[in-house]
Amino acid sequence: MIPKSHPRYTSLRTRNLIVKGVKKGIASMDGLIAHGRGEAFDYLLGEKTNEFAEESIGAAAALMLLAKKPVISVNGNTAALAPKELARLSNLVQAPLEVNVFHPSKKRELKIKSHLKKYGAKMVLLPDKNYKIRFLESNRKYASPEGILKADVVFVPLEDGDRAEALIKSGKKVITVDLNPLSRTAQKATITIVDNIVRAMPLLISSIREYRKYDKNKLKEILKNYDNKKFLEESISSLR
Amino acid sequence: MIPKSHPRYTSLRTRNLIVKGVKKGIASMDGLIAHGRGEAFDYLLGEKTNEFAEESIGAAAALMLLAKKPVISVNGNTAALAPKELARLSNLVQAPLEVNVFHPSKKRELKIKSHLKKYGAKMVLLPDKNYKIRFLESNRKYASPEGILKADVVFVPLEDGDRAEALIKSGKKVITVDLNPLSRTAQKATITIVDNIVRAMPLLISSIREYRKYDKNKLKEILKNYDNKKFLEESISSLR
Repeated sequence: MIPKSHPRYTSLRTRNLIVKGVKKGIASMDGLIAHGRGEAFDYLLGEKTNEFAEESIGAAAALMLLAKKPVISVNGNTAALAPKELARLSNLVQAPLEVNVFHPSKKRELKIKSHLKKYGAKMVLLPDKNYKIRFLESNRKYASPEGILKADVVFVPLEDGDRAEALIKSGKKVITVDLNPLSRTAQKATITIVDNIVRAMPLLISSIREYRKYDKNKLKEILKNYDNKKFLEESISSLR
Repeated sequence: MIPKSHPRYTSLRTRNLIVKGVKKGIASMDGLIAHGRGEAFDYLLGEKTNEFAEESIGAAAALMLLAKKPVISVNGNTAALAPKELARLSNLVQAPLEVNVFHPSKKRELKIKSHLKKYGAKMVLLPDKNYKIRFLESNRKYASPEGILKADVVFVPLEDGDRAEALIKSGKKVITVDLNPLSRTAQKATITIVDNIVRAMPLLISSIREYRKYDKNKLKEILKNYDNKKFLEESISSLR
């Protein structure tokens, strides 16, 4: 047990969640390395939710509420770090969770699914080898015909590489959470939340709870006034 | 197999070495996360050996050659990433390798020892529970009475936390390799090489081969002119 008074309590607690995730067969060793990269960027960003991230979270809440068919893409790290919040978000905006992992493993997909269900998720989809996202080669190209393939807005936190780009090319709007504002995913997404998923998810959920009282025009206004490029640039400045 | 033409060939090859190290029981899951942190800093430093690192490598070579009793401290990540170079360095300057891991595991210590021997190491010491480094609490306080405890110079690459500081307080000179110039180890060491161990080790070995032709006064001169604080500051600027 790490004492709550420890200056790095949250960081160490988060790290433990990922290590436990690997032991449970939910997260992968590549996921651990990716987590370490995230830790370094978080450290440089001050390990707090910066103003630029708050702006992106607000825009993400508006986009999730305006979406006709929102879907939440879940990989091993997201499932290990924020299962409860993923379940809550899914139930709140009626967006199915869709499992998607880099290294092909049906066993791991099923473990992630039951992990999410245990935390209260009602709709969890798995990729189907008969259905593919265009412009992608790896195992991550497979998708559910009832989920990402039909989605107009995809929330893909902690995404690595070229999948965000492929989703954008397929005409979808993409929201991501990424601690590295220089990454390809961060650069390509419609809305990039440069923050730790552990801090960002509760804020996104409470923004959605608040914004759900607004009418659609007000939500559209929020989105219209949001400039992802500007906040990406601010986050890069904050890093340096 | 990753093709050599891949733009991230070295980075991916290095990552594979660590993942293999975990599978072999040499590196730990915390080691994987630490490797990810290193990757992020390496990325920000341009994934190359910068001039400040070359200067530190030269000073480290001089200090290793001037040492009366140099010892090389080896953890799971170092053993996984550079076993051949650790063995070469050890044999070149007659410095024993001493295994030291954070989480207590005699099994892992023995695995690291035989891994290093397989790569040509002749002198590999293990910590002895009857001997301790002062000013330390974790498992890393244990040391060999024939190694670190007797050493005047300790080479401790990829060190995490407070051990470098404890060694310094015990009157030893400490050389480290650390991609994060802001880390406590980087800040406390006598000589800090801000570079990837995979790139730094071969350069350190060739510097020692060259400097071994010099007389002691010339080596002392190199050390006298070396300013660790200055190169640390340069590496921090390069990061931002």
